[in-house]
Amino acid sequence: MLTPNPRIVFAKRVPADSLPIPGEHLIHDPTPTIDLDAVPLRGGYLTKTLMIAPEPFLRERMRERHVDSYSMHFVLGAPVVGFALVVVLRSEKEGINVGDHLYGMTHWEAYTVQPYIEGRADLKSGNYPDWTIDLEAGGMSAVPDPKGAYPWSLYLGILGGPGLTAYCGLEAYGDAKAGETIYVSSGAGTVGSVVIQLAKHRGLRVIASAGSDAKVEYMRSLGADVAFNYKTHPVSKTLKEHGPLDIYWDNVGGESVEAAIENARTRARFIMCGTLSEYNTPPDECYGVKNTGKIFKKLLQIRGLFVGDLIPTYAGKFYAEMPQLMAQGKMVWKEVVSEGLESAPEALRALLQSGGGDDLGKPIIVVAKE
Amino acid sequence: MLTPNPRIVFAKRVPADSLPIPGEHLIHDPTPTIDLDAVPLRGGYLTKTLMIAPEPFLRERMRERHVDSYSMHFVLGAPVVGFALVVVLRSEKEGINVGDHLYGMTHWEAYTVQPYIEGRADLKSGNYPDWTIDLEAGGMSAVPDPKGAYPWSLYLGILGGPGLTAYCGLEAYGDAKAGETIYVSSGAGTVGSVVIQLAKHRGLRVIASAGSDAKVEYMRSLGADVAFNYKTHPVSKTLKEHGPLDIYWDNVGGESVEAAIENARTRARFIMCGTLSEYNTPPDECYGVKNTGKIFKKLLQIRGLFVGDLIPTYAGKFYAEMPQLMAQGKMVWKEVVSEGLESAPEALRALLQSGGGDDLGKPIIVVAKE
Repeated sequence: MLTPNPRIVFAKRVPADSLPIPGEHLIHDPTPTIDLDAVPLRGGYLTKTLMIAPEPFLRERMRERHVDSYSMHFVLGAPVVGFALVVVLRSEKEGINVGDHLYGMTHWEAYTVQPYIEGRADLKSGNYPDWTIDLEAGGMSAVPDPKGAYPWSLYLGILGGPGLTAYCGLEAYGDAKAGETIYVSSGAGTVGSVVIQLAKHRGLRVIASAGSDAKVEYMRSLGADVAFNYKTHPVSKTLKEHGPLDIYWDNVGGESVEAAIENARTRARFIMCGTLSEYNTPPDECYGVKNTGKIFKKLLQIRGLFVGDLIPTYAGKFYAEMPQLMAQGKMVWKEVVSEGLESAPEALRALLQSGGGDDLGKPIIVVAKE
Repeated sequence: MLTPNPRIVFAKRVPADSLPIPGEHLIHDPTPTIDLDAVPLRGGYLTKTLMIAPEPFLRERMRERHVDSYSMHFVLGAPVVGFALVVVLRSEKEGINVGDHLYGMTHWEAYTVQPYIEGRADLKSGNYPDWTIDLEAGGMSAVPDPKGAYPWSLYLGILGGPGLTAYCGLEAYGDAKAGETIYVSSGAGTVGSVVIQLAKHRGLRVIASAGSDAKVEYMRSLGADVAFNYKTHPVSKTLKEHGPLDIYWDNVGGESVEAAIENARTRARFIMCGTLSEYNTPPDECYGVKNTGKIFKKLLQIRGLFVGDLIPTYAGKFYAEMPQLMAQGKMVWKEVVSEGLESAPEALRALLQSGGGDDLGKPIIVVAKE
């Protein structure tokens, strides 16, 4: 018996100056079908997608063919590959059992035979340089049943990629000492909001920025000592007033980097986690940071963050601490839930729009109930 | 009996857009005198300055009062304080003996009672933030008699600050693996020329740039695999042709940083050791680096280098390896010797001029014979 197996297809590469447009670059295709009982598993397993999470890093994989990156491109005509929470329906694989919940990278579609083959970026045939990171190599990992202590969806957020990014990045590169000052840009965002709270748990003084007054209120509620709207309060002026900084957590790039360098203490640490202000800006139009000379003069330490590098070392500590904090209600976490796979392209587009909307929280797309 | 004790006085702070001008900011004052036999030593010791070495970092200490930095300002009206090789004439201090040769920071003057007091920057009274580095804290250290294996002057160069900077920086932050590619800007300079040679000793492929064809030839003679004149060959184009880079050793800042980011491999290491292209540029006119977003995307590691941080860990290895390499003729080192303390201001000015002249080698000022 055939069951509908809708998917989000990566249909067209996204130019540097554009957001991915639903219906053009990302197309919801409702026509595929699958025979859930008879589809061959090839020694793997069949999963049903419960939830997916749009993430800024997906933008990178949608770039044009000639643009270099640390990651592979998505394969045209194949489904988007992103973080998802799935449940196992059938399995031929040792250690993977029916009913297991798994988190990791998979197709944006209703059902998938794992490990998936279609749309798998081929590092070798794609003429990628040898340092390209295989973002899909991590596969899917089982996550424990929270048994009501917190919702399953947290595995897509504070207990998944974004939470790991915040936690591992701060642990590995922050060298945070109680009493120091951290500045977090896009502090109401998925990663930023966790950084703010972890920083407070570590005894830091927190300055945080976002693009709306509602977000400023939210950041204040998370514990930020100084929260400001960068659209009404220039970053450089605000940092000058409330700095200097020992740590800068950068989610936005561009002008904020310049302001943070200007207001950094000697030996400050910069954790570069995103370039939200320039995801859709052509290279020539990106902000020119004029004070890179102060990287030397201030003896700054600047690290581009890829959480995959840090998970082997820090995930154990993360899983020991974060689920506890969540279950005890010591961390605030918000979600913006959309229903239906077809809402994913628009959720991603909105996420990538500089400044975003006034929505607070991690976008989660509920694809199916269990 | 009074002996002349000429000095170089720091007479006027240097604005951001200017070089230190001999006779204006730096004044040779031949009038002081000293009684070498009777001057009180206060439990210290009397040194005779043999050689001094102008260094780019001195520019930072000449900046205007309101400009922030990792270092203290020089004291107006007092002698410049810089690296020197001295010999001990009298001593009241345990462990310091007549005839000892010492290397370290001291007055640019003929004779000095150590530890010197005049012109000693006072971190507390100067309203400096608590992270300011006391560049003078290292004092002077005895250096062994080379007994003819190499000249004493090397202690001001390849066996002193510049050599330590190159060696410790590459050891600590380079994570160099044989077969990787390093780009060294200002590769004919004091630090750059050592970096090139050490990089070759470590099995790296070396790209190096400088501002004249004579310097290009020199860099080639030091082992650079690709040496180019940035005035006739644009950095970005040349790096694109010969890159990508695993390591960038930056001595110049500005546009070269942008070109290096553009041509860096994922996970490349940047060692920021100077901003020669912008030492005399007002902040507003400094080059705007447009691709700082790629620090994140390429997972770069960028470190501002202060050799004082690294000496405790790496100096032992340095002193075990470098004097050997020198004595065995395995490292090339050039000096440009000037005679007389009065030539120091002009030597410093020339050193700080972007692109410099065609002089190859470390400027050394011979102040006195033993």
